[in-house]
Amino acid sequence: MSIAARRLASADGGALLASSFAAEFGPRLLTNPAALAHYARSEGHHGEHLPDLVARPTSVEEVQRLVRAAAELSVPVVPYGAGTSLEGNAAAIAGGLCLDLSGMTRVLEIHPEDMLCVVEPGVTREQLNAELRTTGLFFPVDPGANATMAGMIATRASGTNAVRYGTMRENTLALKVVLADGSLVRTGTRARKSSAGYDLTHLFVGSEGTLGVVVEATLRLHGQPEALLAGTWPFDTLGGAVQTVIATIQAGIPVARMELLDAAAIRACNLHSHLNLPEQPTLFLELHGSEASVREQLDMVQAIGADFGGGALARAVETEARSRLWKARHQALPAARAMLPNAVTWVTDVCVPISRLADAIGRVQARVEEAGLIAPILGHVGDGNFHVFFVLPPDDERAWTRARAINEAMVEHALAVGGTCTGEHGIGIGKQGALLREHGPEAVLLMRRLKEALDPQGILNPGKLFGDASTPGLD
Amino acid sequence: MSIAARRLASADGGALLASSFAAEFGPRLLTNPAALAHYARSEGHHGEHLPDLVARPTSVEEVQRLVRAAAELSVPVVPYGAGTSLEGNAAAIAGGLCLDLSGMTRVLEIHPEDMLCVVEPGVTREQLNAELRTTGLFFPVDPGANATMAGMIATRASGTNAVRYGTMRENTLALKVVLADGSLVRTGTRARKSSAGYDLTHLFVGSEGTLGVVVEATLRLHGQPEALLAGTWPFDTLGGAVQTVIATIQAGIPVARMELLDAAAIRACNLHSHLNLPEQPTLFLELHGSEASVREQLDMVQAIGADFGGGALARAVETEARSRLWKARHQALPAARAMLPNAVTWVTDVCVPISRLADAIGRVQARVEEAGLIAPILGHVGDGNFHVFFVLPPDDERAWTRARAINEAMVEHALAVGGTCTGEHGIGIGKQGALLREHGPEAVLLMRRLKEALDPQGILNPGKLFGDASTPGLD
Repeated sequence: MSIAARRLASADGGALLASSFAAEFGPRLLTNPAALAHYARSEGHHGEHLPDLVARPTSVEEVQRLVRAAAELSVPVVPYGAGTSLEGNAAAIAGGLCLDLSGMTRVLEIHPEDMLCVVEPGVTREQLNAELRTTGLFFPVDPGANATMAGMIATRASGTNAVRYGTMRENTLALKVVLADGSLVRTGTRARKSSAGYDLTHLFVGSEGTLGVVVEATLRLHGQPEALLAGTWPFDTLGGAVQTVIATIQAGIPVARMELLDAAAIRACNLHSHLNLPEQPTLFLELHGSEASVREQLDMVQAIGADFGGGALARAVETEARSRLWKARHQALPAARAMLPNAVTWVTDVCVPISRLADAIGRVQARVEEAGLIAPILGHVGDGNFHVFFVLPPDDERAWTRARAINEAMVEHALAVGGTCTGEHGIGIGKQGALLREHGPEAVLLMRRLKEALDPQGILNPGKLFGDASTPGLD
Repeated sequence: MSIAARRLASADGGALLASSFAAEFGPRLLTNPAALAHYARSEGHHGEHLPDLVARPTSVEEVQRLVRAAAELSVPVVPYGAGTSLEGNAAAIAGGLCLDLSGMTRVLEIHPEDMLCVVEPGVTREQLNAELRTTGLFFPVDPGANATMAGMIATRASGTNAVRYGTMRENTLALKVVLADGSLVRTGTRARKSSAGYDLTHLFVGSEGTLGVVVEATLRLHGQPEALLAGTWPFDTLGGAVQTVIATIQAGIPVARMELLDAAAIRACNLHSHLNLPEQPTLFLELHGSEASVREQLDMVQAIGADFGGGALARAVETEARSRLWKARHQALPAARAMLPNAVTWVTDVCVPISRLADAIGRVQARVEEAGLIAPILGHVGDGNFHVFFVLPPDDERAWTRARAINEAMVEHALAVGGTCTGEHGIGIGKQGALLREHGPEAVLLMRRLKEALDPQGILNPGKLFGDASTPGLD
């Protein structure tokens, strides 16, 4: 069934679904168009997509009953967290039931002695770290937005710490997932490793709500470092900053964070977050370890940077200064958006093998300049991952065309050098063509087979990853 | 179809398959029972299972043609590497084609600048590290045996370094896999992270050859440490050694290796590898880092151990002494086997959350003593993973019954405290009941759905993980 046909077909089912849960859910069930509008858009640039209804479950059992009822009526089910995804990942493009999990916010268990915790899907990264503060532990994965854990699992998110602590892939130990028929599966245990059967946990991590609804997660935690050093480090050239990153990673120095911001990104952060940094390509650096090891890492990193035009590293010594720094980095998206009145931002990302990073970023920067666009470049460069924040007037079709061309070229180049079309944003609506080019038709057909095996009706977040909800190519 | 019925049915197909490839493959195709016998058993205790034929392909294209032909004749295909698995993972229990990939031994690419390499399936861990020696890099995953990379991928293997460098899960970036219909898929890229679609790589890692045949792998490499300290560290009690491990991990000290050997394991190693260690519970320790950081780690670890009855740490200073130490550890299996003439070894493992490790090991040790068995206990305790090496007279049914009871109790306890029934050996034939108890019927049904989606005829390594090759419970 095409998405358009499915949208039409789902409306009646959606109305039936709403009426059967209205009494029980009360104000936790929304059908009023004004209320639905809040769920119609995310931080991406993929337009508005109104679900037929929104339900705000508060328990696993409620999620199961909602999914079971939706399955009986063939109504699409679109899991929704903080609405911060960038590729239309949670857009209800076929209508149906938007399953808002943001009210399930309990941290269920913390096991400091095993360095793990168990959370409900709507727990946000800021909430989790606030609750962990007194344990001596922290959860490292930190996409810019204050996303929910289930949303971060759905997009296999990462962030500034991934170079040292890993992404959601490495930090998700186990899940509870409601499948398309409403049944509940538990994947994984609290053991750090296992070779007991198929890796169901990692089948769901990154599946963007198309294979099941994540309703609980067991996450790895990490010890708060004994010592910590953060600072900003301006460079003469973007290339010099990137070369410093490459050499640091190749030398095996275990930096905790190593973020690149080009001059435009620094300008945006200065304006939005009231910083006063020189408008130069800059690395935001953070080192973790013992006092001695942090000093040693700093010496090594600075020796490398000196060869590539690194200036004076300005340390953020106080906790408050350090928080301000990372808050500014995390707010790069609103900062970029504020550069142009009424602008729409389009954030794209790729990830390349580290040796190709300087070339990849240099090409994009040259194209952005040539096109005369406002498009700060920044990213988690220690992983080979970087972002372009296109800041576009909504109706300037020429600017959009140029941005599309730059995005295409950036993805093509990433694929040509053995990289991926998205390091941490997912495919959603926006990168479906790139998914096919990256993996090839055989692998995408295999993904579709998995989708069909787990969701034969195609009700879970239809139209994502593979375009149409039908599965041509399958028997 | 039952395994017995499948074995009968496959014999004719096997003969047809042999005749169609005989001319082309020549001596690389084996049907002589004496030659087949080599493939009939592994290092496990699961008896002998003769395939109908063995083919030794040397290219991806040959693997594809063999699998395609086997699929047409519904002949089982059992991938085979070094034959070192422990749970009957590569046993041809339904006969059919044993696909011996141990001849595909080329290291295809090494990219030091991106810290990765690309290998054929039959490359062994010792071979790979020999070829990497001059690059400044190494591949960390080291199960005891000199296993092949594809075999290690199939069982999601780990080893002594996993506590710091991860298992095959963390170190496998991408694969090429021949599917059940002979088609070839590529999973993943050379990027360190990606959120582009389903994680096909990790679907195959740990799938024990039941979903596809791994024919190429892209693996992460790590920098050889600047400084390195290895040594043996005897303890008054097993509990004290384990408590030292727990406290070390909880303190976040990045030990590279922390292996536990009980007194019986030390005795076995002394005899087999001509060491002269005190027959006490002992930690084999290795620290990696800069000179300063290794010294700092050592001070911290020794301070912890002093509280738990740690004796004098005997450093293995010379490279040769260090190699002898780890070789002895890796040869623990033949060492255990040599403790009793004509003995059969049965190696089992579990992995528990680190806080439960002392209790888990203590219970097993008490039961082993009570049962009067020879069963050294050792393991990668920094992960919460430990092994029991039962050394059994082949015909002593009472001893086997006792060993089975200890294994059952060990698995039950691991599951009860949130652990897994196997940390690194896989399910194979031996732990199918435990798989079901660990994951529950819903998750195992989901695994079977995946199996059916990828291998609808059930020809790939039939009878593993889920018992019978048929899929009851599926529509």
